[in-house]
Amino acid sequence: MRQPVITLTTDFGLSDHYVGVMKGVILTIAPHARIVDITHELPPYEPAQAAYIVEQTYRWFPKKTVHVAVVDPGVGSSRRPILMEAAGQYFIGPDNGIFTLVSQRERHKVRAITNHKVFLKEVSQTFHGRDVFAPAAAHLAKGVAPARFGSPIQDALRLNMPKPPRTGKRTWSGTILKVDRFGNLVTNFHMDDFGEHMQRPFEMAVGLEKIGKLATHYAACAPGELFLIVGSSGYLEVSTNSGSASKRLGCGVGAPAELSVY
Amino acid sequence: MRQPVITLTTDFGLSDHYVGVMKGVILTIAPHARIVDITHELPPYEPAQAAYIVEQTYRWFPKKTVHVAVVDPGVGSSRRPILMEAAGQYFIGPDNGIFTLVSQRERHKVRAITNHKVFLKEVSQTFHGRDVFAPAAAHLAKGVAPARFGSPIQDALRLNMPKPPRTGKRTWSGTILKVDRFGNLVTNFHMDDFGEHMQRPFEMAVGLEKIGKLATHYAACAPGELFLIVGSSGYLEVSTNSGSASKRLGCGVGAPAELSVY
Amino acid sequence: MRQPVITLTTDFGLSDHYVGVMKGVILTIAPHARIVDITHELPPYEPAQAAYIVEQTYRWFPKKTVHVAVVDPGVGSSRRPILMEAAGQYFIGPDNGIFTLVSQRERHKVRAITNHKVFLKEVSQTFHGRDVFAPAAAHLAKGVAPARFGSPIQDALRLNMPKPPRTGKRTWSGTILKVDRFGNLVTNFHMDDFGEHMQRPFEMAVGLEKIGKLATHYAACAPGELFLIVGSSGYLEVSTNSGSASKRLGCGVGAPAELSVY
Repeated sequence: MRQPVITLTTDFGLSDHYVGVMKGVILTIAPHARIVDITHELPPYEPAQAAYIVEQTYRWFPKKTVHVAVVDPGVGSSRRPILMEAAGQYFIGPDNGIFTLVSQRERHKVRAITNHKVFLKEVSQTFHGRDVFAPAAAHLAKGVAPARFGSPIQDALRLNMPKPPRTGKRTWSGTILKVDRFGNLVTNFHMDDFGEHMQRPFEMAVGLEKIGKLATHYAACAPGELFLIVGSSGYLEVSTNSGSASKRLGCGVGAPAELSVY
Repeated sequence: MRQPVITLTTDFGLSDHYVGVMKGVILTIAPHARIVDITHELPPYEPAQAAYIVEQTYRWFPKKTVHVAVVDPGVGSSRRPILMEAAGQYFIGPDNGIFTLVSQRERHKVRAITNHKVFLKEVSQTFHGRDVFAPAAAHLAKGVAPARFGSPIQDALRLNMPKPPRTGKRTWSGTILKVDRFGNLVTNFHMDDFGEHMQRPFEMAVGLEKIGKLATHYAACAPGELFLIVGSSGYLEVSTNSGSASKRLGCGVGAPAELSVY
Repeated sequence: MRQPVITLTTDFGLSDHYVGVMKGVILTIAPHARIVDITHELPPYEPAQAAYIVEQTYRWFPKKTVHVAVVDPGVGSSRRPILMEAAGQYFIGPDNGIFTLVSQRERHKVRAITNHKVFLKEVSQTFHGRDVFAPAAAHLAKGVAPARFGSPIQDALRLNMPKPPRTGKRTWSGTILKVDRFGNLVTNFHMDDFGEHMQRPFEMAVGLEKIGKLATHYAACAPGELFLIVGSSGYLEVSTNSGSASKRLGCGVGAPAELSVY
């Protein structure tokens, strides 16, 4: 028997019952669903962080996986729930830009979910993870066709998450997208776009430091030395061996990262 | 094939191996069980917090789900392990009041688990999650009848978790049951009991503030404004848009919440 | 249908997508695998802490479970990925001593994983959890024979994690292996080795205190009193009822614990 996969990415944390309740709703509707937690520790109110996590995750899952992402400061307001199809997978969440990075990378179709039959009978104003998104994902995983969820829309909200703009002949102005647990600073310089430039001597200015070394792996550098590395993310990351680049540089999400190539 | 669901609610945390070991024990006995974590971040030694989580969780799960809850300062002492049947579901845990809120809400039958065949062969004095509760849940999920676990008892321990007592003609004295990750303060005023009163002008005194507004959803209020909202819990919650009401008011679990209706 | 079990023990944390991505890789290769998180909160760069967790976990899982452990400061360097068979179970991780405690306890065979067909097609230099260990575990769970992973080796790295050496006629010098969430200090005095000695009067010096009481369960002692207890780990643990022995003593991992028997 096929066991459809549903992933969950939220800001609900792990100390409350919210995530567990979403799983109960899913298993009531789709008893054979396999549920995978991506993270529930996203910062509240920041859909851009969720957008990054979703973009890093989906390609590693089987076809037809349903990715549910809920960072939703607008719960209860008129923002729409949406279903996006892209790369042979499904994405369900609020229409607040949470799938921006996936939609920049993949051909996609977005629907507003207007068919209330895929929600719980009673929908609260405060917990759409439970009442809207979990049941919609479960119905999709169970085989309800996307077309039955609602009509395609063209005006889904997109966050402003541009590639680093060029600021000079050989300079680009980027930013830190994400700090991971190890203190690696993930920049928004993607190797698909900047791989060629990185063949030349370069300098990246982050915090008060300028970094001119591109390492192949963490252990290749001396402890404490700062370097760039092509992270598992596909983005350039600022790292230091056996330590936190974030602490070392005093930098976090949103800090500028300026690349100069010589 | 049926895949019975077992939920886990504990104070074991996620940095140790304790929860993982419980799952190993369950899957050894009941290989097809689906295990759902509710939370493992409950404060140690406070069964009342666990009682709230369990009460918020069970109704969202399929019939016959086995809910295991372990916050158990008395492990190794003579407190009994119990099995409660209520609302078509099963509850397994120590007899320390952990199921008080469910038993206030549902018809129920409680048994002391005295049949040692549903435990591991060797039962330690320090880890009944592994040796007693996990295997009992697995045997139940696998189809062993509740009657084989032990005889019904009438004297299961109940925590003192009363509804807010009336303190005047139109005043009630409640408390904060729970603070969630977002800083929402969940009071013990349940809408089943107080919904009618809330049709009238009111004031709720919490910390140094008096709150007179009942909002329908978070985004309906200005950032920073305090308001009441009917939470997904069914209880009145004190909230503020895009911020923590708990930090704003300097209040946590156990703080008084006084309701006056005019 | 058999649902093979794969456990995950890492230092990847729960706020990033790393663990979720490993699960996506596993479910793509082995859709029926049951994945169990042991912990992802291990301190980075400390394989010895991982070694303890793995040793505490494996025996509680069904035969043929695949235990994946990744605390891997040397990712991308020449350290080998290994597959160990022991106690009817499988262990996959980097060759950095992470399975030292299991291999001290069980007959075992270790292979270097040299067959790249069990990895992802592209192997990054920074995320072997995703590219090497998760796919190898999935292929093993799916039924690929261990012999196809690579040849046996005799020189797998072992951490120096000795039993407490004797320092006098009736004194031994041990250490704290682990502090758990409750503040219990797990020593490296295992009851298999010291059970007999503990029949006699004794004193264990930890921090500035000397402890002479061996309790049978936590609730048997007065709140605040320090005592030894045979933990669920099989090791002697320093505990205090309803409080943290670690905070009380100001001691953590690596602190000395001196046992004297009279």
